[in-house]
Amino acid sequence: MSNDPIAMRIAQWANAVTWGDVPENVKERAALHVLDCVGLSFASLRDDFARLAAEATAGEGSASVIGMPQRLPIADAALLNGILVHGLDYDDTHPSGVIHASASALPTAMAIAERDRLSGADLLLGYLIAVEVSARVGAGANSGFHARGFHPTGLVGAFGSAVAAARLSGLDSAGIAAAQGIAGSLAAGSLQFLDTGAWTKRMHPGWAASTALAATRFAAVGWESPPDVYEGRFGLYAAHVPEGHAIDADAAARGLGEDWELLRVAIKPFPACHFTHAFADATIALVTENDLRGDDIAQVLCLVPEPIIPVVCEPADVKLTPRSDYDAKFSLPFVVGTSATKRRFSLAELLPEGLEDPASLAVASRVRYEVDPSSTFPKHFCGEVVITTTDGRELRHRESINRGADERPLSKADIEEKFLDNVELVATRAVAQRVLESVLGLADAKDAADAVNVWRGQDD
Amino acid sequence: MSNDPIAMRIAQWANAVTWGDVPENVKERAALHVLDCVGLSFASLRDDFARLAAEATAGEGSASVIGMPQRLPIADAALLNGILVHGLDYDDTHPSGVIHASASALPTAMAIAERDRLSGADLLLGYLIAVEVSARVGAGANSGFHARGFHPTGLVGAFGSAVAAARLSGLDSAGIAAAQGIAGSLAAGSLQFLDTGAWTKRMHPGWAASTALAATRFAAVGWESPPDVYEGRFGLYAAHVPEGHAIDADAAARGLGEDWELLRVAIKPFPACHFTHAFADATIALVTENDLRGDDIAQVLCLVPEPIIPVVCEPADVKLTPRSDYDAKFSLPFVVGTSATKRRFSLAELLPEGLEDPASLAVASRVRYEVDPSSTFPKHFCGEVVITTTDGRELRHRESINRGADERPLSKADIEEKFLDNVELVATRAVAQRVLESVLGLADAKDAADAVNVWRGQDD
Repeated sequence: MSNDPIAMRIAQWANAVTWGDVPENVKERAALHVLDCVGLSFASLRDDFARLAAEATAGEGSASVIGMPQRLPIADAALLNGILVHGLDYDDTHPSGVIHASASALPTAMAIAERDRLSGADLLLGYLIAVEVSARVGAGANSGFHARGFHPTGLVGAFGSAVAAARLSGLDSAGIAAAQGIAGSLAAGSLQFLDTGAWTKRMHPGWAASTALAATRFAAVGWESPPDVYEGRFGLYAAHVPEGHAIDADAAARGLGEDWELLRVAIKPFPACHFTHAFADATIALVTENDLRGDDIAQVLCLVPEPIIPVVCEPADVKLTPRSDYDAKFSLPFVVGTSATKRRFSLAELLPEGLEDPASLAVASRVRYEVDPSSTFPKHFCGEVVITTTDGRELRHRESINRGADERPLSKADIEEKFLDNVELVATRAVAQRVLESVLGLADAKDAADAVNVWRGQDD
Repeated sequence: MSNDPIAMRIAQWANAVTWGDVPENVKERAALHVLDCVGLSFASLRDDFARLAAEATAGEGSASVIGMPQRLPIADAALLNGILVHGLDYDDTHPSGVIHASASALPTAMAIAERDRLSGADLLLGYLIAVEVSARVGAGANSGFHARGFHPTGLVGAFGSAVAAARLSGLDSAGIAAAQGIAGSLAAGSLQFLDTGAWTKRMHPGWAASTALAATRFAAVGWESPPDVYEGRFGLYAAHVPEGHAIDADAAARGLGEDWELLRVAIKPFPACHFTHAFADATIALVTENDLRGDDIAQVLCLVPEPIIPVVCEPADVKLTPRSDYDAKFSLPFVVGTSATKRRFSLAELLPEGLEDPASLAVASRVRYEVDPSSTFPKHFCGEVVITTTDGRELRHRESINRGADERPLSKADIEEKFLDNVELVATRAVAQRVLESVLGLADAKDAADAVNVWRGQDD
């Protein structure tokens, strides 16, 4: 193993890697993750947080924002795009890095590729570099960041994004290493939002991207930077992980280019608690295969892994009548009832009319649960549904591995459907199709700026 | 004591305080601290770091930079101004907060006051609010930040600056509290620079100011923020201070408006290690009172507190022939030899011709040291000098308390002299005088933007 500092090892890989080195399946997945992020950004536009974030970042520049008309200074565009991707908390996650992986990576790559009129493949490569590095830097903490009160998505996103921004900006290995060293003095992200559900969490990935751009600007002029930003005595891990916690700093640079962490980044199929996903899929499968209407359903029995009962089943009265979309996301009866009547569970089902839909609430009131004797939780977020029909049939479906887990990634069709559902909340099908084609054609686009311009969803 | 969260208590004070509430002596000191910062910014212009920082922040906006012609977006102007004030490490410090107090406070207040065309008194009030809050927030950690690897100047500067920026932006108490809550997710500052003397330290105060402006923009639109950003389970102190370290979180809000921490902020009289200051003053006093030339001096005996001998006296060969201005700042023989021949010790004496001045180096070679039997170190950085003249006289001077310590602040004349020395490194006396008058007249300026424009030092 190299004796170089970790940041330099990462830099050497990032400096050398080309789009041609990336395996085909990874290339394809990269575009699908970008598609998911772009769709989520459109979906966010309905929400107050998107409007307020746009107010807070109002300014003049030339960087694009997904789904919005304004052009901003690139640091602000990266911040706002990060807020749009992550704000609904429906964006992808990397399990061992314990991070939302794409929400800082995409805004960073977009900003540089658009500014410097790089190719679409460059944008995708920058995105991929950021994900590969962030996921590893997160994994190096061995889940230790949370214990000290840091939100790894904000903290490590700055490092992955700095590598990507520096690489796309044309810096050499020393420059890419320096960008990481500087990011070490700027990276942040507090878990204090947890106590009140504060919106600071929504800023973390975008802020990581924005700080990475600042770090890169200083690296580009030759600013002197600490080499041992990860493993040093005051480095990322020493400062942000509890004393005595077993870290694995070398994981931050291990396997780069050999093993692709992107393939472990999970795209969420449903805008609800992870634990409910298998039940939604099982329900949709049963009602579709058997062409059931809500009135055909006498009872739905869910076999639930015991540890998740307090999260999604109890207290039963709250779960049966969710007062907000947030409540609804954590209600197994609501998710199952809605999936049974709508045969889908997208953000549209969390709009006020969805929350009050009589047919869905009627089925929800007939949902029961028992402890699943065959549970493999938490290895898999499994779920089994047994529907008893009004004509006395017992129909059963088990999802042993939740869709979206790394062993069972969403298909291209799934991701496209999610994208269209998201964009069509706020835009026409024509706009959605145009953006979809632009993202899926990105690898062949000569000028990333043209593609990014399409993602704005404006008619100009 | 109030049961409100600390951030809200701070906010209520900041929201209510007016320039009229500030005691006269504090008002006068505030202007002198601003003067010192502005002078230091000019002095920085000679250095590579200033040129590179200006390159890294190049952009278009309307915010002014001290000593420079460009106009930048305010976040970049705040970052660059912070780098200029702090970059030489010759800016003021608050002892119990363990921070450079003014280097984030002034850029923040400048940015908002100029943008919103507030009065000069508003700028000074904003500056003072930032110092009062940063000093207290720093003190609340009870020196615990360093142990976890955080540079308090970067970390707590963001909170004081957020309070000032929010107050000057016209936010109410809730908004000023929210700005702090948001700053908690953005504040950063790593000590990893210590291992190699990296320039990331130079960015910390300016970055704190820049992040405070971002936090304020989000607070201004009503972004939901965690209330317990200091005392919460994942708040500033929990996350950045070692477990078990005795903190005093309430100190962050204690005594605001009753006791003025600005009066404890120490302005450095000499651009050298704190420990050498008493010796420089003692030497200057002796050679001035006795009108000695270098050739009149047979020997200089320094009585040195034992703990500082390894810092400023040994290894003797390095101390006698400093290879860089950095070496020279930590060389007691060099500081004393130069003070004896030049009767001053300013940045000019650290220029290459100063480092190689034969007369100064000749006296430096005749400097001896003994352990000071009457040392009060570290309570005071005392120093005693005994000069033996070539005609056999023994002349003795002791500085029991170093000038610049909070018990012995620099006089207005001292600070003005330091300012002129600094500005005249790079500008004419006419420019220096014009800037000096502008800063000292700031409290009466109707439009802070006019004053800030003068500080640019340009002829337009």
